[in-house]
Amino acid sequence: MSGHVLALSGGVGGAKLAFGLARVLDAGQLTIIANTGDDFRHLGLAISPDLDTLMYTLAGLADPIRGWGRHEETWNCLEALRQLGGDTWFRLGDRDLALHLERSHRLAAGESLSAVTDGLRRRLGITAEIAPMTDDPVRTKVRTDQAWLDFQDYFVRRRCEPVVREIAYEGATTARPSAALQRGLTGHTLRAIVLCPSNPLLSIEPILSLPGVRSMLAARTVPVLAVSPLIGGQAVKGPTAKILRELGLAVSNATIAERYAGLIDALIVDEADADFSAPAGMQLLTAPILMNCAADRVHLAATLLAAADRLR
Amino acid sequence: MSGHVLALSGGVGGAKLAFGLARVLDAGQLTIIANTGDDFRHLGLAISPDLDTLMYTLAGLADPIRGWGRHEETWNCLEALRQLGGDTWFRLGDRDLALHLERSHRLAAGESLSAVTDGLRRRLGITAEIAPMTDDPVRTKVRTDQAWLDFQDYFVRRRCEPVVREIAYEGATTARPSAALQRGLTGHTLRAIVLCPSNPLLSIEPILSLPGVRSMLAARTVPVLAVSPLIGGQAVKGPTAKILRELGLAVSNATIAERYAGLIDALIVDEADADFSAPAGMQLLTAPILMNCAADRVHLAATLLAAADRLR
Repeated sequence: MSGHVLALSGGVGGAKLAFGLARVLDAGQLTIIANTGDDFRHLGLAISPDLDTLMYTLAGLADPIRGWGRHEETWNCLEALRQLGGDTWFRLGDRDLALHLERSHRLAAGESLSAVTDGLRRRLGITAEIAPMTDDPVRTKVRTDQAWLDFQDYFVRRRCEPVVREIAYEGATTARPSAALQRGLTGHTLRAIVLCPSNPLLSIEPILSLPGVRSMLAARTVPVLAVSPLIGGQAVKGPTAKILRELGLAVSNATIAERYAGLIDALIVDEADADFSAPAGMQLLTAPILMNCAADRVHLAATLLAAADRLR
Repeated sequence: MSGHVLALSGGVGGAKLAFGLARVLDAGQLTIIANTGDDFRHLGLAISPDLDTLMYTLAGLADPIRGWGRHEETWNCLEALRQLGGDTWFRLGDRDLALHLERSHRLAAGESLSAVTDGLRRRLGITAEIAPMTDDPVRTKVRTDQAWLDFQDYFVRRRCEPVVREIAYEGATTARPSAALQRGLTGHTLRAIVLCPSNPLLSIEPILSLPGVRSMLAARTVPVLAVSPLIGGQAVKGPTAKILRELGLAVSNATIAERYAGLIDALIVDEADADFSAPAGMQLLTAPILMNCAADRVHLAATLLAAADRLR
């Protein structure tokens, strides 16, 4: 099969599947749209955690243990910053800093986040297109038992400790989907759309909340598949399970299926969750969805694409 | 003797004498005013080369070989920036970056350069006051045989290769001397004013060109002493000799004396230059002015202060 694949992704889990898709597809056949709701400014730098994780993962530069930032990283700037009394709660590695400096500098010079990202991913030798969901500011905010918090404040500084009551995507209703996202959703040569195994509420729904995206997705004629971020009622990584519970949602594929109802044709769950019954109108597919190594990522991507082609 | 000492300084040579003065004087007895004509923005960062060199030198963090930046430095951010296609002609070390990030961040938040500098030097354990000559932007520009160039463009990117025709201090006539400089020049407990062995045209005259500074200096009742940046008709470091020649000035203490005529009571030259005759109204003092180690710096500072006290 030929044709283009559009993947919507958050950070770590989504980036692993995106890596697999990039390995399975030819250059020019994959567009990865990153959530930018987690973006923020820190020490004057424009930081885009999900775009960064995608770029580092696809370029083979990601740290496999830490789950964020670059491998073979050093922390000398951070250590010096600590001595100067600067903010060090967000851990910026020396090599990672280069990306933030270059992006911030180009944004300040008037380039769009899409243009900057495209330039950077090319310099990193990534052949898949990587683009932000929008060039406009969208900021995920978390209402907790304490206060409304910026996402990175909640996620990194407070280590997801406050109890989550509500999540909002500030700016989403007026932000314009990026050119890559619009092209991906309306292009005629599309083969499939993939919702990567990221947290639906924190990573995928910010993208879906942009004007027109849900309706374009609902109107699509190509298969839309989602991969669950849960295995055996637990999140593979991150605070997904805790947040679902705190919002009164079951930590189960039923919740994932409900969030994506009407938007996807098939949900791929882990083989361990084969007893799950998908709601009407949604196919259930099982596959090993834990991606421990590059081979796992490639295997899941190939399985997903084969399933998409059967759904056409 | 007690009383306060005000030192006007550029980078390397000036910082060495400032280090010596800080060792000889008690805490609270020394104010060092830095030239900020070399300041510039790079990758969105506010960089103040002379303030940085002064802080690193007085904190014992300066690299003794390179003559700029921090010792035990690493260059991982710069290397990553090179991979991303970023500007790398100005070499920012990983540890050095912290200072620029923190300063830029605080300036953007509305703090003055004076306030930021005072906070940073205290964090670095420096008891001498270090302050910029002004909180307003002054930019040294160099007219060369090619074009008017920003100073760092001339100095670092083009390695002082273009021929200098003219030097200007953009913004100097409207910039306000910093509070520390005004206090230093008009304070009643002043013991001496020192023009450090920096390039007169690039480091000291930008300070002198600020409104009121020359007249306040001329009206002072305390001794003003300058240390020559030349030894045996050569600059100890940097492009001073080349620039003097290109501007049609002799590379000699006569030129230094002429630049400072009417402003200083005494010029300290190296023992190797004892045959120099100072102009009328200016005392000539000789001392070993090459500062290869901490002891040299302390010795020159002590010699200078003793001379100043004799001049009172």
